[in-house]
Amino acid sequence: MRDFLPAEKARRERILTLITDSYRAHGFDEIETPVMEDSSRLNAGLGGDNEKLAFGVLKRGLTRDDFHAAEQPLDLVDLGLRFDLTVPLARFYATHRAELPNVFRSIQVAPVWRAERPQKGRYRQFVQCDIDIIGEPGIQAEAELLVASLATVDALGLADATIRVNDRRLLIGMLTGFGFAPEHHDGVLITIDKLDKLGPDGVVAELAERDFDADAVEAFRAFLTRPQADDSLATDDEPFGEAVIRRALPEGADPAVIADLVAIGDAVAAARGEEVAPLVFDPFLVRGMGYYTGPIFELAHPSVSYSLGGGGRYDGMIGRFLGTEVPATGFSLGFERLVDLVEPPVASGGAAVALVHDADAPLATLLSLQSALVARGDRARLVRRAKNTKLQLENLTEQGFTSFAFLGAGAPASLDALDLRALG
Amino acid sequence: MRDFLPAEKARRERILTLITDSYRAHGFDEIETPVMEDSSRLNAGLGGDNEKLAFGVLKRGLTRDDFHAAEQPLDLVDLGLRFDLTVPLARFYATHRAELPNVFRSIQVAPVWRAERPQKGRYRQFVQCDIDIIGEPGIQAEAELLVASLATVDALGLADATIRVNDRRLLIGMLTGFGFAPEHHDGVLITIDKLDKLGPDGVVAELAERDFDADAVEAFRAFLTRPQADDSLATDDEPFGEAVIRRALPEGADPAVIADLVAIGDAVAAARGEEVAPLVFDPFLVRGMGYYTGPIFELAHPSVSYSLGGGGRYDGMIGRFLGTEVPATGFSLGFERLVDLVEPPVASGGAAVALVHDADAPLATLLSLQSALVARGDRARLVRRAKNTKLQLENLTEQGFTSFAFLGAGAPASLDALDLRALG
Repeated sequence: MRDFLPAEKARRERILTLITDSYRAHGFDEIETPVMEDSSRLNAGLGGDNEKLAFGVLKRGLTRDDFHAAEQPLDLVDLGLRFDLTVPLARFYATHRAELPNVFRSIQVAPVWRAERPQKGRYRQFVQCDIDIIGEPGIQAEAELLVASLATVDALGLADATIRVNDRRLLIGMLTGFGFAPEHHDGVLITIDKLDKLGPDGVVAELAERDFDADAVEAFRAFLTRPQADDSLATDDEPFGEAVIRRALPEGADPAVIADLVAIGDAVAAARGEEVAPLVFDPFLVRGMGYYTGPIFELAHPSVSYSLGGGGRYDGMIGRFLGTEVPATGFSLGFERLVDLVEPPVASGGAAVALVHDADAPLATLLSLQSALVARGDRARLVRRAKNTKLQLENLTEQGFTSFAFLGAGAPASLDALDLRALG
Repeated sequence: MRDFLPAEKARRERILTLITDSYRAHGFDEIETPVMEDSSRLNAGLGGDNEKLAFGVLKRGLTRDDFHAAEQPLDLVDLGLRFDLTVPLARFYATHRAELPNVFRSIQVAPVWRAERPQKGRYRQFVQCDIDIIGEPGIQAEAELLVASLATVDALGLADATIRVNDRRLLIGMLTGFGFAPEHHDGVLITIDKLDKLGPDGVVAELAERDFDADAVEAFRAFLTRPQADDSLATDDEPFGEAVIRRALPEGADPAVIADLVAIGDAVAAARGEEVAPLVFDPFLVRGMGYYTGPIFELAHPSVSYSLGGGGRYDGMIGRFLGTEVPATGFSLGFERLVDLVEPPVASGGAAVALVHDADAPLATLLSLQSALVARGDRARLVRRAKNTKLQLENLTEQGFTSFAFLGAGAPASLDALDLRALG
């Protein structure tokens, strides 16, 4: 968990505003939920491994007897800090469905908490930026998500971003075709998800060690190492489209699912006024969470090896708290990773003026000048003059101030007479 | 704890932006601290009664043995949710002092949590808006706080706000003069704090029931019910200044403290270009927290009987984590109360366009039109056409959309050909 000092806080707020404004412009609406949810809901099996990382909040008014009777942590807690924004969204939608549009496009920009072991680059409190479209079963939802997210990434100055695309149904179809038993699919996918890290040989080795059907593993190995395999993973040299997708998949892949992905790509390209959408088909993209049911995405950028966000369709989940099927798809930007990459434009607007004053400058005059500067749209701070004025002015420049004036006992009472000088 | 739906979330964000922008313009810098602090720090005696309301966060990896050995909740928690923004500020300042300006003007706009019993108007998660000036011992700090806070309240459209003013040193001087023993001062102040609720007779009755010196209680009663008492509490009919303050206090009040309050008033009036500052001296203003050491404030507005914020000087507290004296003064706006009172201006800017489309409108065209609208600064949402179009357009108007177009199979591909019509 981190403190944010003024410069970093201002930078983070500028990036958050850019993201929120861009998503709002694309028709999404911001909502907010409490940071705590009922423990029972956080532990309902929708959060995958993250459930184990939920911070539990101690019940109020517990007695010694309660401690002694407790068998497990859950006996002592009734609330927990959210570990993602998807479980709260499902609960929010179940509660407020009647007050929301039929197709609800939500923005959530908010902190989440995970009780990670302290290590570099892992935070226990971090911000997620999620958009979700609930109630739209068709690929219009996916196309909207991608158009809005790519435009947002553009607005952040990351113009070369691409989105890796796959579909859970293609993955399942592939595993079924190779002969993996349905009850092994989740386990196989966990290993396939490590392809970037382990490479094809490593993945096959790990699969061979497990209790999976040996013929299925061999079929997968043969496919993974076929001569065209390297070509099919190429990202830049051929446009996203039916040919590329077909060539990357084994025979017999569902043509309707492929057509969906192609249509998403066409719509995204049209919206961006480009020949080809910045999408890359990746037949081995898995995405960790088990709740995905359709197209899945991951945001990539040439400057980094890790993903900058991702998402996908999760039709089964929102309805769990409602007892009815509700289609949904979402995309999450990895805010903390974006912050490290992005240098957002400094907000334009008025000047930032330091009124550098001696101890004998009349307070009423100083405050009048400050108020006059604020009234005309400037930022203004009163600063006691330091012994080392040169260093002080350098510090003020570093803090973002653009001009200054020295004020003593005879400080002028009006802005017109103020001797403002440029800084930096 | 509450969910915020789109309209209310947008309203809250607009108000928060107005507040933050106004404080920033007055030279304050926004910071952020994690929502959790060490339990030992939250329970260090700086939070008054609020400490008891801190949510404790269960330690990770506890075993049954730990539960059985636990004597009290604190044995099971190492972190807690902050109950205010002042304790975290003190910790933040102690940690980062070397990286901050000599006089540090902070803005904190963030949620806090209190384990209140559920009741109307009490929230377990609510937002506080604090500004603090750390490192400035003189009244310049108080004058700056009040100028910035009053300008912020003006910006929110609450132009008739006033600030009730007192000074802890005058209160202590008064109690000493009446003959209350120093060890009784805190208890007496708790009762005086109820003057608004109990009235003079009620306060005297409560003091008489307690173990306080009877002569002191009688001296206080005589002062409280003296013929001029009602006049001295009058708020509107006489300008804030030395005469009013003197008349409201018993003989022997510290002239230096009175001079400080008068100087604060003069500076605030000058900054606002007004004859008299919108301050009201209240000799019985106490403010709950025990850590105040100098001038104290409470924000009042004629439309409500409760206070909308407050603050004061607390020179002893920030230094507790540093082992050295650090002067500090702060002001906190009661955000949740302001939200109920204020109707912030809707952000100007582009239009909000609903692209109301049939199922057969080409997706690529719809998304192209949306992107073109966003590119020219509008907000744009794709909306599937409903059976009851009239009701649908009414709903869109209510959601803030300003214009719409119907789009079918032959939707035009360019904005020029789009038949945009006004809504509402």
